[in-house]
Amino acid sequence: MNGCMMDFPLTITHLLDRALALFPDVEVVSRLADRSLHRQSYRDTYRRSAQLGAALKRLGATQGDRVATLCWNHRQHLECYLGVPAIGAVVHTLNLRLHPTELAYIANHAGDRFLIVDRSLLPLLEKFRAQLRSVEHFIVVPDAPGEAEAPFLDYEALLAAETVEMPSTPWSSHAVGFVRPEENAAAMICYTSGTTGNPKGVVFSHRSTVLHAFAGSTVDSIGVGSQDVLLPVVPMFHAAAWGLPYMAVLNGAKIVFPGPHLDAPSLLELMAAEKVTVAGGVPTIWNGILAKLDAEPGRWDLGSMRTMVIGGAAAPPAMIDAFRERHGLIVTHAWGMTETNPLGTIAHLSPKVKERGPEAIAAARASQGVPVPFVETRHVDDADKPLPWDGKTMGELHVRGPWVAKSYFGGEGKDRFTDDGWFRTGDIVTIDADGYVRITDRSKDVVKSGGEWISSVALENALMAHPAILEAAVFAGRHPKWDERPIAAIVFKPGKSASHDELNAHLEGSFPKFWLVDLYVEVEEVPRNSTGKFLKTKLRELYGDRLLGD
Amino acid sequence: MNGCMMDFPLTITHLLDRALALFPDVEVVSRLADRSLHRQSYRDTYRRSAQLGAALKRLGATQGDRVATLCWNHRQHLECYLGVPAIGAVVHTLNLRLHPTELAYIANHAGDRFLIVDRSLLPLLEKFRAQLRSVEHFIVVPDAPGEAEAPFLDYEALLAAETVEMPSTPWSSHAVGFVRPEENAAAMICYTSGTTGNPKGVVFSHRSTVLHAFAGSTVDSIGVGSQDVLLPVVPMFHAAAWGLPYMAVLNGAKIVFPGPHLDAPSLLELMAAEKVTVAGGVPTIWNGILAKLDAEPGRWDLGSMRTMVIGGAAAPPAMIDAFRERHGLIVTHAWGMTETNPLGTIAHLSPKVKERGPEAIAAARASQGVPVPFVETRHVDDADKPLPWDGKTMGELHVRGPWVAKSYFGGEGKDRFTDDGWFRTGDIVTIDADGYVRITDRSKDVVKSGGEWISSVALENALMAHPAILEAAVFAGRHPKWDERPIAAIVFKPGKSASHDELNAHLEGSFPKFWLVDLYVEVEEVPRNSTGKFLKTKLRELYGDRLLGD
Repeated sequence: MNGCMMDFPLTITHLLDRALALFPDVEVVSRLADRSLHRQSYRDTYRRSAQLGAALKRLGATQGDRVATLCWNHRQHLECYLGVPAIGAVVHTLNLRLHPTELAYIANHAGDRFLIVDRSLLPLLEKFRAQLRSVEHFIVVPDAPGEAEAPFLDYEALLAAETVEMPSTPWSSHAVGFVRPEENAAAMICYTSGTTGNPKGVVFSHRSTVLHAFAGSTVDSIGVGSQDVLLPVVPMFHAAAWGLPYMAVLNGAKIVFPGPHLDAPSLLELMAAEKVTVAGGVPTIWNGILAKLDAEPGRWDLGSMRTMVIGGAAAPPAMIDAFRERHGLIVTHAWGMTETNPLGTIAHLSPKVKERGPEAIAAARASQGVPVPFVETRHVDDADKPLPWDGKTMGELHVRGPWVAKSYFGGEGKDRFTDDGWFRTGDIVTIDADGYVRITDRSKDVVKSGGEWISSVALENALMAHPAILEAAVFAGRHPKWDERPIAAIVFKPGKSASHDELNAHLEGSFPKFWLVDLYVEVEEVPRNSTGKFLKTKLRELYGDRLLGD
Repeated sequence: MNGCMMDFPLTITHLLDRALALFPDVEVVSRLADRSLHRQSYRDTYRRSAQLGAALKRLGATQGDRVATLCWNHRQHLECYLGVPAIGAVVHTLNLRLHPTELAYIANHAGDRFLIVDRSLLPLLEKFRAQLRSVEHFIVVPDAPGEAEAPFLDYEALLAAETVEMPSTPWSSHAVGFVRPEENAAAMICYTSGTTGNPKGVVFSHRSTVLHAFAGSTVDSIGVGSQDVLLPVVPMFHAAAWGLPYMAVLNGAKIVFPGPHLDAPSLLELMAAEKVTVAGGVPTIWNGILAKLDAEPGRWDLGSMRTMVIGGAAAPPAMIDAFRERHGLIVTHAWGMTETNPLGTIAHLSPKVKERGPEAIAAARASQGVPVPFVETRHVDDADKPLPWDGKTMGELHVRGPWVAKSYFGGEGKDRFTDDGWFRTGDIVTIDADGYVRITDRSKDVVKSGGEWISSVALENALMAHPAILEAAVFAGRHPKWDERPIAAIVFKPGKSASHDELNAHLEGSFPKFWLVDLYVEVEEVPRNSTGKFLKTKLRELYGDRLLGD
């Protein structure tokens, strides 16, 4: 027996209709390359998204066609996020931090027919354009002065050529050419930026995208509402900018895009001037912001800030504490992956945690948090057997839910999906009795010393709390007796240093003896991958044999 | 091209799993018939729901079977809300305010196989039990002293006979016999309590139920979160108690059930003692509470109250203002129907409204509000043509969305559904430029005077703001010249009165001349239907010919 409720598909098109009906005057602010601020309304955004859709169709776009973007965070990128899926096509965000060879591989793998590129990124495109096999149309967003020359089309000229009559009644976006596809239809493709192997494509559906936006709007997650002003520092070419743009449109929150200006002073200035309430970005960004705030306390009025969402990599607890203690700013720690659209868990404070007092609260804030509604978590041993939620036992995190991938585009990486419907995240975690997940390592980064696991992340966090250390990356060194032992690559703060023995003494109180680091290597900077994560493969390559002797 | 996200069904079973994994210690408090408070945890609730499911299966329940409840709001009713759908059966809440003949009709129409009844309601059941054609098993909830005798089974004895081993790993409710059905599977049937014609059944699905709970958890709607303590005063036999129980379980909020004690002092005592943050009920309930608070200000500490959700009928603006001005209590006005699961619109204050100042804020609070995410609204003329959102033009409200009915159980009432996918609500409304819906009447209650529409609700609200008037119901009187003219049935406050001319003078400033009431009839009380709404059919029957002369 079935329910008798409407077969109403969950689509991005509804978000557009909703924004026009209820929030037409809400602002979309974009910082341009010349640092000026551009403002348009959601009504403008709707109209321009419709013009984009009409222009793409005029060029031959049909349902399911892939439209690539190679863009910074700005209004036109938002129009691609909305207008492309709303005509039934699929927006494919290219990660401009990747190597040109990887970009060519990804665009060819996805079969992109259109490529929308910022003029300022044309030099990057030129490095791989000759390798592109499927792109028929190149469209240039004029974020820098210049003229589009063949084969390039001008984004703004294409839009200007399309006359769109705005619908006279709400919820009538079919009148401007938008469709409401079946909810499992593809809306967006994002590729994972793996440190090994070829990038793999994850195809978000309309359903997964809007359910994910719904999840981000609940009180106990990010809690995005109409009062918010969102600043997605996380690039729109990373996992849908964590869905923040869709959360904004769903709820009528103002959006502020930083454009290419991602340095700390530019971001701080924008946060203060536009009264940002929620900003989201990876730890590296926040590290820079923290340093700037420490250097010039009181320079920026961040009184509107409600929370800073940190994800993409684990934020060191010392950083979370520093923001709160020194600047009164609250960090919301979240965990996710491209394969989870990406929001999976969030470090919400339950009433139970709050009752336990400051230490429990700090521990919860530093954790990756509890699963958001409709996401389910477990961690397992090598035989995929679920492990106890005791806060101690380490195992690989598995997740499932309506916005978790069941496969990669093209069917690659089948080994990441279990037969009983879970996605293997590759993260080594503990889960405590209240469901709080704590990442102890990436599965490939955990140090396996004589059969025991040592968490590189735990050691890094402890080392980064040492007053002399700016950054620390711990990785496995090959060892003749124990197979692997921890090595730490460290960057000292300017003018500071500490000895091997001092650093191990610092660690000694918090960890078992056998966790202590065998070798400290001072480096100028820790190598990182395109998303700002430590590149431990590189560290192992450089220093991994140092414990083997001659 | 489809997305590659998991086919993860949205089910009530996930809510149970989530509660056990993340919120096992959260309390479910029930006030018993003897006024004492019973407390159990979500863990207990999970176990008992599993025991209920097992007991029903032992009695022969299979997928799709209807299990009726005739119960007050209490923990066992919650167990029915959860445990029945989680075994794939369908919970059917019987409205104990209905006439026994109607109850028999409804139970037979739904084909109920099981009927779970409070012992205190057995006298009601006995009035229609002989007419029941499909019920095979009667199960008595021991809410009052006594023994269950054949053919009655005892709810607690049935549960005690089922040994349920709690799952050792999270998200494993299949181990206790729960299933995750396809998401469109039926979960609950509620019948509308129409004032005319036979009641009609609405079948909620798992999907509609949990999406609705999701909607109630967003910041800009009710915003239910783990910090909340919910008091559903609205009966669980009305439109799923507005989904409040499911919102609580989704988010780990404490629930407080009032049992049969719905008088104002009992509710106020419970709100204060259990630190209730959100209570929901119809205007009649809140009217009583307001009178009590006015009579004994300061007696109850309601400092924990975040908001009182009022729906089911329009709350008079005077009441909303009085709560805020005299008691500092915030009313959240909402609109919905059984056919909308029921949350459709909510009087959330947008930043735009807030900027406009106190008058705009009061007007927005008194409106039915804006549609929640994924619900779409329009109002139309007699030819179903959409009308302008100008805040003036009146038309019938239509809605659509993932938790709006597309049909009634058994296929009755086809004329309530348009060919292009909208549900005709029967409410006459205006919609303003910001999307705020204002009910001006039920379509059958609007007064049609010489071709012009007069809103009975607007007149009632104005009359109820007069110092001498306790209650006013305006309805159409037949008129020889104008077809219909407004008549008002009024109840004066004790010791007060006002003349026809005084009352029309009170109205004159706010309405066109032709809206003024032709006749005031003083009555002892306004007749109401089972859900507390004015029974205008009755008023028309009694007084509708008074303007015709002899």
